[in-house]
Amino acid sequence: MMQPDPLDLPVLQAFRRCSPLVHCITNDVVQAFTANILLALGASPAMVVEPDEAEQFAAIADALLINVGTLTALQVQAIHRGIDSALAADTPWVLDPVAVGGLTFRTHLCQQIIQKKPAAIRGNASEIIALAGLSGGGRGVDSTDSAASALPAAQTLARQTGGIVVVTGEVDYVTDGSRTRTVSGGSIMMTRVVGTGCALSAVVAACCALPGDRLDNITAGCGFMKQAGSLAARQSQGLGSFAIRFLDALSGMGEEA
Amino acid sequence: MMQPDPLDLPVLQAFRRCSPLVHCITNDVVQAFTANILLALGASPAMVVEPDEAEQFAAIADALLINVGTLTALQVQAIHRGIDSALAADTPWVLDPVAVGGLTFRTHLCQQIIQKKPAAIRGNASEIIALAGLSGGGRGVDSTDSAASALPAAQTLARQTGGIVVVTGEVDYVTDGSRTRTVSGGSIMMTRVVGTGCALSAVVAACCALPGDRLDNITAGCGFMKQAGSLAARQSQGLGSFAIRFLDALSGMGEEA
Amino acid sequence: MMQPDPLDLPVLQAFRRCSPLVHCITNDVVQAFTANILLALGASPAMVVEPDEAEQFAAIADALLINVGTLTALQVQAIHRGIDSALAADTPWVLDPVAVGGLTFRTHLCQQIIQKKPAAIRGNASEIIALAGLSGGGRGVDSTDSAASALPAAQTLARQTGGIVVVTGEVDYVTDGSRTRTVSGGSIMMTRVVGTGCALSAVVAACCALPGDRLDNITAGCGFMKQAGSLAARQSQGLGSFAIRFLDALSGMGEEA
Repeated sequence: MMQPDPLDLPVLQAFRRCSPLVHCITNDVVQAFTANILLALGASPAMVVEPDEAEQFAAIADALLINVGTLTALQVQAIHRGIDSALAADTPWVLDPVAVGGLTFRTHLCQQIIQKKPAAIRGNASEIIALAGLSGGGRGVDSTDSAASALPAAQTLARQTGGIVVVTGEVDYVTDGSRTRTVSGGSIMMTRVVGTGCALSAVVAACCALPGDRLDNITAGCGFMKQAGSLAARQSQGLGSFAIRFLDALSGMGEEA
Repeated sequence: MMQPDPLDLPVLQAFRRCSPLVHCITNDVVQAFTANILLALGASPAMVVEPDEAEQFAAIADALLINVGTLTALQVQAIHRGIDSALAADTPWVLDPVAVGGLTFRTHLCQQIIQKKPAAIRGNASEIIALAGLSGGGRGVDSTDSAASALPAAQTLARQTGGIVVVTGEVDYVTDGSRTRTVSGGSIMMTRVVGTGCALSAVVAACCALPGDRLDNITAGCGFMKQAGSLAARQSQGLGSFAIRFLDALSGMGEEA
Repeated sequence: MMQPDPLDLPVLQAFRRCSPLVHCITNDVVQAFTANILLALGASPAMVVEPDEAEQFAAIADALLINVGTLTALQVQAIHRGIDSALAADTPWVLDPVAVGGLTFRTHLCQQIIQKKPAAIRGNASEIIALAGLSGGGRGVDSTDSAASALPAAQTLARQTGGIVVVTGEVDYVTDGSRTRTVSGGSIMMTRVVGTGCALSAVVAACCALPGDRLDNITAGCGFMKQAGSLAARQSQGLGSFAIRFLDALSGMGEEA
């Protein structure tokens, strides 16, 4: 079985011991994969979407994920009520601003809600640059900028929101505006299976519910995914088996051989 | 290939011969897995959601599944019209009351529709206890009670509704209020892959459309899933390959080696 | 690795070089599988659903897929605005008329939108016959007619719409109304995994965005799927591993061993 970076082992153990209940308001495409990634790491996913229920559940959950990948007008209501309820209950909430910048409706929403103190934001370089108001976004859901080029935008955004910002790419950058960590590894295959980025955002949300330093926790979470990606790439015969090995690697991480 | 319990073989054969058309109004997370489980056993899944279409299709289908996991106000309309149409056409309908008790909106709906003679109800212990009005539910979608502890609630509910109630857990209990069957086996891994419970509810719906004793049919359906879970756990290297082996086991069940 | 038919190799290379951005308005069940199939072939999928965003995004994308499998009233708005925007931007759009004929709501929509010059239509025999106004459709989502029997309907429909019509079955027929190509191969297992037909429709949409003869491109796209199905059937141990091997085959197609 794969062992995590020794520095990250306490975070993995906390993940499995605390089993954070993560309320996911996420896009239609990645629901099952996101749930299975959270389960593989030991968290408990719950997708609750009707505005009344989203408000009620965000106060019960340990963390709330907002992903705008297939945003609808109904989801906008659920998102506002979920976030307000999370804030009132002191539940951390995390934003995945999928394709922000390129589409007006979601860009407007993202600009509104980043005023509401997200504990973390996770996006690719184009999304983070666009969210910081510095450019117009990528092509569809793919980034056209390198993660390093988005670091200044990420730091600005972290200072503005008071939360942590994660820019993912060949190298991931995790910053709270003053401290910045990098995570390398992974595989290009991660970008060719739908939902690895969206699932990482759910993992980041779970990490925000763990005890300890939030920057350390999130950095460890990014590391788990990079390591699983590296191992899965070596064990797979194509993109289908890659996704399966990726889940296998996460679920077995840290177990004795 | 895996052989079913000899007592269950006629049910497996009926499943494949009749290929029941199962109309699923289910949650966003488990749509593909539910469809693939039904297909692996030989049934024909169809997800039809718009209220007008749900009404029309429930009268054509062989069984109707209602799963409230990601309930929305629009789904509530589709559910009411689908059930009424199913009843008028003498189509059996099955309820999976995901997370009932913990969330007001879905609890209210579930309390209403169990008045409408479900052929079966399938839930975990916390859900069945909550639906019988005996407690307040689990934590998110997970049960905090043992299946055995929910048996009295299941029997009460079966007598009240006139249908069969299935409580799943380490041991599954299947009761019509007077007769009770148990099914053991399976694997803890089934609880760590999203959708195994929801897919079982779809299998239960399909079983309600088969000829023969409904309690026997549903007990056999629970057995197929337990057996597939046991075999998949032995053959898998983690949660990703577990789900794949689970489908392989169901699709090959009963075939000659 | 699997090699495509030599005649289809230029299409595969164009697919990977152009990486067409495919805007998918598709059903709830096949979102992830569709995205992963497109990614495996080198295309870039994006599911964008809110009517405002669908209008904006259809003008940016290289192709638009409309699949009515879980049609809702909200989707109808997104579909109309997406198609109108695609036409204005000269973006090809493709229709997958899932279960048309059997359900009034979607049949009415499909009859309306085939007036709007789809670049292609992909369906099973029952769907194509129903869409051409010649019969009443299949049972649920499954065809009750053979692909060959639907060829006259396909040719009529191609001439009426000015686009290409694909009827899939044991043999696929691809016609522009005057020229007709056939594609054989594949495996019966493709019909027992949810989403292979829906994903093919997304591949057809991507093919419409490639340079060269559209009939050739689409025929090649059908061939890629048939070949992947044949190879996956030989390598799999059941329906779970079949879907994984199918994705592996597509992602590795044309690569050196």
